[in-house]
Amino acid sequence: MAKAPTVEDVAAHAGVSRQTVSNVLNSPDIVRPATKQRVLDAIDTLGYRRHAAARRLRLRRSSTIGVRLDPYVGGISGVVLDRFVHAITDRASERGMRILVYAARTTQDELTRLSELWEGSEIDAAIISGTFRDDPRVDHLDAEGLPFISFGRPWGDDDMVAPRHSWVDVDGAAGTRSATEHALHFGDNVAFFGWPPGSGTGDDRERGWRDALRSAGARGERVIAEDSVPHARARFAAALEAGLTADALVCASDSLAVGALLACGDARRQLPVTGFDNTPTAEALGFSSVEQRPEEVANAVLELLMGPTGDVVTQSCVGSGAAHALIVPELVVR
Amino acid sequence: MAKAPTVEDVAAHAGVSRQTVSNVLNSPDIVRPATKQRVLDAIDTLGYRRHAAARRLRLRRSSTIGVRLDPYVGGISGVVLDRFVHAITDRASERGMRILVYAARTTQDELTRLSELWEGSEIDAAIISGTFRDDPRVDHLDAEGLPFISFGRPWGDDDMVAPRHSWVDVDGAAGTRSATEHALHFGDNVAFFGWPPGSGTGDDRERGWRDALRSAGARGERVIAEDSVPHARARFAAALEAGLTADALVCASDSLAVGALLACGDARRQLPVTGFDNTPTAEALGFSSVEQRPEEVANAVLELLMGPTGDVVTQSCVGSGAAHALIVPELVVR
Repeated sequence: MAKAPTVEDVAAHAGVSRQTVSNVLNSPDIVRPATKQRVLDAIDTLGYRRHAAARRLRLRRSSTIGVRLDPYVGGISGVVLDRFVHAITDRASERGMRILVYAARTTQDELTRLSELWEGSEIDAAIISGTFRDDPRVDHLDAEGLPFISFGRPWGDDDMVAPRHSWVDVDGAAGTRSATEHALHFGDNVAFFGWPPGSGTGDDRERGWRDALRSAGARGERVIAEDSVPHARARFAAALEAGLTADALVCASDSLAVGALLACGDARRQLPVTGFDNTPTAEALGFSSVEQRPEEVANAVLELLMGPTGDVVTQSCVGSGAAHALIVPELVVR
Repeated sequence: MAKAPTVEDVAAHAGVSRQTVSNVLNSPDIVRPATKQRVLDAIDTLGYRRHAAARRLRLRRSSTIGVRLDPYVGGISGVVLDRFVHAITDRASERGMRILVYAARTTQDELTRLSELWEGSEIDAAIISGTFRDDPRVDHLDAEGLPFISFGRPWGDDDMVAPRHSWVDVDGAAGTRSATEHALHFGDNVAFFGWPPGSGTGDDRERGWRDALRSAGARGERVIAEDSVPHARARFAAALEAGLTADALVCASDSLAVGALLACGDARRQLPVTGFDNTPTAEALGFSSVEQRPEEVANAVLELLMGPTGDVVTQSCVGSGAAHALIVPELVVR
């Protein structure tokens, strides 16, 4: 790669000192107009590009946020995280921040990459996602001093009152509650199709369904499957075979919803089904689904991370100053 | 944000000159071991982080490639470009390169952003996508001197023999040819469901179907729709109503395929359908589809852009030295 022209080249071409070039770039008001014009002409002629790294070095800031982009694994729900990355990219650029994406295959890999980027001052902050209980990333990033925020809550008892770190999440229970309230229009027997118990996200979504049933004095069975269409199809077919009755079905994901719809098709049963994530698949097949609003998540993440002034808020990402935002999802009825 | 320790701080703490610290960092062999140890201890104690911007400034390189990430617009095929970005991120990091994603809403917007990033030395190269005939980005980026490569061919008559710029694309015609050859197992009447004529990609995919029919001495009708499920469903329903006969159907996209499948379901018709893009929707619904292999595209893009040595190959991206790679897609039969 050809070496780009330097400040020295500009100075030599304009017949001025290096300091004068620097003044034109940094304090143009103190340079005489004729000299300034000569320097600007030299910059133009040589195609000198002011090096952002110089500015960043001076500020000791990169104005860059690191975001992990997992290798693609397929499945219809991966689009939610991709939409979030799209939205973060869009909103960050409005705030003059850059987004650097990096690949990682494991949590350890992720931490190694983040440390490299932080130690090289290539990022000022990180956004992590897919949080789980006792997530090792929290202590690690805290110890490194790297400001971070998570898309996903810590899943501890103190989530809301004294969160361990700043986070933004989607209120899954509110989503399934609203889906269940809508489903109750079809009758007072609303089943739930969820994941095996134990995951924070899954339990939260099941809770919204239970709450809505209790409030309405309604009832409904729960069916469980892993989050894959073939598995969901087989499990739901078995449930129908075993005599499941329901006026409508609320699902913890669009994958489960597609599996249920295919099983209903196989059994020539009609059942109103609501999914979760509002993926392109839900749109294509025309079933209702709960929309996570990743664009709102992205807004809240940047707001909490950067504050209203746009500076990265280092001190409030971990510990007592930590803040959080819970985005209310939206039922898209089809 | 607290100011990070500087080289001066390290020098003061170790009781050495700034130059000695710099020598320890850049030419450790010329520093006496005891002095070196004192400087390394000071670096450790103060938590000095060597600033990547300094290294980049010295090299006048950013080791970063810019990739546009469009705002999310929905639809089931957007996942192909996302998969490509995932793969580029993964492969670039193996080569020690960073990926900076940026948002743009229009071609002009994209060029403005790229110019900013290039002028600030924040990127060494760019990857563009969604190329079209007489794409204004080619002349613009060439004039700026920004090395670039496109995912998508120039769509000119000289694509293969003397491409205007370096590119990697997927051989769409080979994909539909292979889908059609497979469909001919169901009978010698294979219909094609495509987009309105005039788009490079769409015409290319139609050509593969025609070629396969001709080779086999078979026949088939062509149905046209815009790339949305509801539109495709309505158009295909109308075609069935008008007496379309076919033993199988090859489609230019998974959106068209879903529309055709829904229309067949409405009309209680059974028809083997093959889509294009192998989206999660195709996987979920279980129909065959042509897989673009975006991971192979990413490999080829980096190979052409960086060469075997890993340096950005500036001189061969535009004009007579331009190179290209055509990835053969793979039919996934379900």
